[in-house]
Amino acid sequence: MGPVVAVVGGGQLARMMAEPAGALQIRLQALVEAADGATAQVVPDARVGAAADAAAVADIARGADVLTFEHEHVPAEVLAALVADGVNLQPGPDVLRHAQDKIVMRHRMTELGVPCPRWVAAASVADIEAFGDEVGWPIVAKTPVGGYDGKGVKVLTGADEASVADVLPWFEHPRGEVLLEERVGFRRELAVLVGRRPSGEIRSWPVVETVQSEGVCAEVMAPAPDLPAHLAEDAVDVAEAIAEGLGVTGVLAVEMFEAADGVILVNELAMRPHNSGHFTIEGSVTSQFEQHLRAVLDLPLGATDLTAPVAVMVNVLGSELEDPSSAYATLMESYPEAKVHLYGKSVRPGRKLGHITVTGTDLPTVRRRAQEAAALLGGRQR
Amino acid sequence: MGPVVAVVGGGQLARMMAEPAGALQIRLQALVEAADGATAQVVPDARVGAAADAAAVADIARGADVLTFEHEHVPAEVLAALVADGVNLQPGPDVLRHAQDKIVMRHRMTELGVPCPRWVAAASVADIEAFGDEVGWPIVAKTPVGGYDGKGVKVLTGADEASVADVLPWFEHPRGEVLLEERVGFRRELAVLVGRRPSGEIRSWPVVETVQSEGVCAEVMAPAPDLPAHLAEDAVDVAEAIAEGLGVTGVLAVEMFEAADGVILVNELAMRPHNSGHFTIEGSVTSQFEQHLRAVLDLPLGATDLTAPVAVMVNVLGSELEDPSSAYATLMESYPEAKVHLYGKSVRPGRKLGHITVTGTDLPTVRRRAQEAAALLGGRQR
Repeated sequence: MGPVVAVVGGGQLARMMAEPAGALQIRLQALVEAADGATAQVVPDARVGAAADAAAVADIARGADVLTFEHEHVPAEVLAALVADGVNLQPGPDVLRHAQDKIVMRHRMTELGVPCPRWVAAASVADIEAFGDEVGWPIVAKTPVGGYDGKGVKVLTGADEASVADVLPWFEHPRGEVLLEERVGFRRELAVLVGRRPSGEIRSWPVVETVQSEGVCAEVMAPAPDLPAHLAEDAVDVAEAIAEGLGVTGVLAVEMFEAADGVILVNELAMRPHNSGHFTIEGSVTSQFEQHLRAVLDLPLGATDLTAPVAVMVNVLGSELEDPSSAYATLMESYPEAKVHLYGKSVRPGRKLGHITVTGTDLPTVRRRAQEAAALLGGRQR
Repeated sequence: MGPVVAVVGGGQLARMMAEPAGALQIRLQALVEAADGATAQVVPDARVGAAADAAAVADIARGADVLTFEHEHVPAEVLAALVADGVNLQPGPDVLRHAQDKIVMRHRMTELGVPCPRWVAAASVADIEAFGDEVGWPIVAKTPVGGYDGKGVKVLTGADEASVADVLPWFEHPRGEVLLEERVGFRRELAVLVGRRPSGEIRSWPVVETVQSEGVCAEVMAPAPDLPAHLAEDAVDVAEAIAEGLGVTGVLAVEMFEAADGVILVNELAMRPHNSGHFTIEGSVTSQFEQHLRAVLDLPLGATDLTAPVAVMVNVLGSELEDPSSAYATLMESYPEAKVHLYGKSVRPGRKLGHITVTGTDLPTVRRRAQEAAALLGGRQR
């Protein structure tokens, strides 16, 4: 009774899909890494298995209307086998590989005429040296496959042995190439979240500003403050052009740089709910998690209007507390308007343990209060 | 890691507690009627058992910080045994009995000076005749224990055998008495939801108007339209006085009549999340389900401000469709702003299958659109 969605992944993203799934009477079948992980704690039908295990993925797909993902780590051959078996994958393998391989992504962005930093696929240290000399040092090196949250990204100041030491192992991946990008001098980082369904309907949320800390999303402000209307329009146009150009289904997150000269450059893509969209749970009529489920089921999309003039999300990255929820009494006493989200994870340094969202009207106040509330969960009284 | 809440009941109310429980990293241990029921579909730790089975209730209480309820049907002797075993019950048995027994409730309301319809506890047909002759026919008869959603309520036009036939069996309950109330000529029905925690903190949501259909909640408008400020204040004062007078913990719903002469009279009490508060999921900063969990855990309460000028909730009571979710495509296409909630129940005539909430600024528009969207889930195109 009601739709069934299979999801690969047992982290906080699949966990947060469970809320709208319950409201919409959608049954989730989740393939999770651990029986007591973030997703398994809240999804009755969570089965332990590896995303690279074709049989395990096929098992959760059985009886589901669609199979979708909370991460990009399902190997191409597993995806191909599912398609051959007639499983409805959303997004499909040909689309997903643009989120799995950053070099494939850059090639396609260039074909689509999407503004990007200058880039090259380097096959050798000589290529690194040539690119750095061409665009100017420092440059940014990225492993094309498997990087996340700042992992697999290095800033290179030169092509000497010491500088490139960390990058050399990346050449050993079957891909054989490393992505090099110019280091863009940007004013700030922006993101656009888009929902798109197979039949083509598309809806975007307003552009947000993201604040990164050591390559990890730390804060999101919605909408992006003081963004000139023409830049906001450009950013949404670019994101929707990517969604349509690639044929994305589900939620697409496009991370962007607002360059010093008022130009928008595309940085990264993710084809799933994304940290930059967590604010939508309270800050929008339709959350990114609900929209992703609707989109992959090819149901009409929900309204993406904001529910308040301002929403700020602040991540809880690591904690000095053994159990962040031990701060609830203090937090809730002082911040009755703060919406607390913890993911049921054990504490490790820098780990994404949860987030706080506050909505309101005055950005400085809302931001300060969200930061203070998040700091309490982190055991760092501000 | 994080608080653990045991809840008795496997219907839509415990189901909807699962959403904020997930966000707040609260583990639920639910005692449910059926392994595939509304709650068990979304709560991993749902155990099948009867609310009257002392061992089953004790089992879910084990390891929990608190035991609470989604209904009033746990027998007094089971509650007493739990208290004797040191289980933290919220609300406690002495409080809960005011929601379990309407005659106990009326006695206590009268002691507290709360405005009520005139009432009497009748022990015989002679008592019925005397009360009807005193206050004027028709009168309302209620079974003091076990009634819900219009069940256990009869309008009596006289004390003759045919009129009282349905009421006679109620005298056979160990209680031995039937509650009689004058039939109040009211303008409309109102409700006030209050959250209160053991340490005494109290927060109310704005007064709502409820529309009943054959004794069942059909619609809720928040805030109650065109309610004079002094009446709104009276209504909240009465509800908070009851919460404090009884020592309620968790969410208290107070259903009221706005009498023709602008007087507020208390009709019914429920000590748990209530149908009149479903609008709070989207319509308030803190939902009644989150507030109930915070309150029974004695955590500081969340803000109860509304998120929009107007919120309307419309119930889906029965459906012409075998599977109401089969209307999603039509509904979502035309009502992208509607928030859909289905409870995972099979269809039966008049059964509460789900609800729709719409928020906005213009009450007639919001109400019409919520009604239309709910009608689609009911298979009744409007």
